[in-house]
Amino acid sequence: MSREVLVESVPNFSEGRRMEVVDAIEAALRVPGVLILDRSSDPDHNRSVITVVGPPDAVLEGLFQATKVASQLINLFEHQGEHPRLGATDVIPIVPIQNITLEECVELARRLGQRIGEELELPVYLYEAAATRPERRNLAKVRKGQFEALVKEIGTPEREPDFGPARVGPAGAVIVGARPFLIAYNVYLKTDDVSIAKQIAKTIRESSGGLPAVKALGLLVEGQAQVSMNLTDFQRTPVHVVVEAIKEEARKLGTEMDRSELIGLIPQDALFQAAAYYLKLPDFDRRQVVEVAIQKAKARAEEAGEEPSAGGQPG
Amino acid sequence: MSREVLVESVPNFSEGRRMEVVDAIEAALRVPGVLILDRSSDPDHNRSVITVVGPPDAVLEGLFQATKVASQLINLFEHQGEHPRLGATDVIPIVPIQNITLEECVELARRLGQRIGEELELPVYLYEAAATRPERRNLAKVRKGQFEALVKEIGTPEREPDFGPARVGPAGAVIVGARPFLIAYNVYLKTDDVSIAKQIAKTIRESSGGLPAVKALGLLVEGQAQVSMNLTDFQRTPVHVVVEAIKEEARKLGTEMDRSELIGLIPQDALFQAAAYYLKLPDFDRRQVVEVAIQKAKARAEEAGEEPSAGGQPG
Repeated sequence: MSREVLVESVPNFSEGRRMEVVDAIEAALRVPGVLILDRSSDPDHNRSVITVVGPPDAVLEGLFQATKVASQLINLFEHQGEHPRLGATDVIPIVPIQNITLEECVELARRLGQRIGEELELPVYLYEAAATRPERRNLAKVRKGQFEALVKEIGTPEREPDFGPARVGPAGAVIVGARPFLIAYNVYLKTDDVSIAKQIAKTIRESSGGLPAVKALGLLVEGQAQVSMNLTDFQRTPVHVVVEAIKEEARKLGTEMDRSELIGLIPQDALFQAAAYYLKLPDFDRRQVVEVAIQKAKARAEEAGEEPSAGGQPG
Repeated sequence: MSREVLVESVPNFSEGRRMEVVDAIEAALRVPGVLILDRSSDPDHNRSVITVVGPPDAVLEGLFQATKVASQLINLFEHQGEHPRLGATDVIPIVPIQNITLEECVELARRLGQRIGEELELPVYLYEAAATRPERRNLAKVRKGQFEALVKEIGTPEREPDFGPARVGPAGAVIVGARPFLIAYNVYLKTDDVSIAKQIAKTIRESSGGLPAVKALGLLVEGQAQVSMNLTDFQRTPVHVVVEAIKEEARKLGTEMDRSELIGLIPQDALFQAAAYYLKLPDFDRRQVVEVAIQKAKARAEEAGEEPSAGGQPG
């Protein structure tokens, strides 16, 4: 268990209204070994997101089967929703969780993309770390003009798929890639002035020259200014670095941070980083965490050929 | 694995010089299922401490076997060392780690104590949460006068053992109990004035009316004032509460905190608590931690009778 290789995937499907369709997709995803961590559907976006985790082979098989079912049950020529999309299974990111690198996840993404292209005969685009062209790293650019534009442009060199045929059917195209764990993190300010949140977002986000691997928007949420973020690589820019930057900018603009909000999941290492920073533990080592130490000891016992979790009491 | 019940124990043996004796004790502890997380010997104290973790039955069996070996190889009539002790196996705490309560660990401690008393014919005293008398909760009081006093006093009502005979042989007595996880945590100050560390220690420790479950001493370590602590129940008084209290006292006394130091292990929940506090995440739930969510999903899959970690790719 401790040497177990785990990847996460958060496939996005273009169906958020017909629950029987989402149920069928989830059932296809549930191959042995795949754990469903979360599922949420948004009727306005007409889109569902399912979070799965498991060993790479199992997750890839589940993703393939789910993509197949979605391609049979969702017709993009009839699909309407607020969220941009290219296909029935719109995006499939492969995310390293345990005992696997991002580079290995790139290989997994390409393997899955190839299989979808060949066996389901859908056009497949590789994105982020798996991209084969620089301009395809950015998901928004791959999805530009959405399904409706792709139908017209699929024959152009810019739109040539990485795998599968250069033609678009009712299931559209599938975007497959690999990326680090994404933390969806919001900071509320003690003000109702959204312009301050917008200003802070602009200062801290990478696209305006701010912190690497930080995407940020300023919003007004239930009357309170909020800096809404995606932290796309917490090893490059830790959560506490972002929070401290926001605190400082807020002070400059005459307000202060109220609280944070975590949407979905966060890796334990991101919290260990923050705790060690604030507690001023310069020599902290994650192997000092009991649960991590137990995992390491189990791995050593397994390597030594011992049986680490035998049951009964012999004597 | 995820529903696995895990306890920790940190047995203390009165031998820190003859490594062949400590090796024999460790070998006895290594029954199937028991993981050795750490082992350290102090020749001045003439004492060794081994940290083990595993399922309760396996840990109890290992502790019994190690106590048996120690009772055969260590003679308290000949033992000298700086650290107070009552017996060859001096103290055995049982600590809840996963899927088990402190109350259940009390039962385990009593089961182990009874077996040691009956099968090894050693006097056994129960301490901390397992104590049968209020005055035996405190380990230092149980160990008062050490082995040498116990030899004379074992026949008195105050010294009546909880299990085993009221007589002392060369192996002395064994003190068995249950307690929450103990965090050994030090805070260095930006001063070489040890009186400030002593003053802060006095202010924050429970015994002087400070924070619950905090033991503290002021020391001078390599020319730097240090508040040296045992946090005996981080659910009652979290690490970050202690650190913030020290920061405030240090300010009052004209200095400031330099850094912290963690000796040994810390439970992940203590770090999650600290991260959530400093990041101002009032709605944080440990189930939002990826690794915790995976464990929970595995437990659900096991309950549903599924095979959560099957291997190969069927199609």
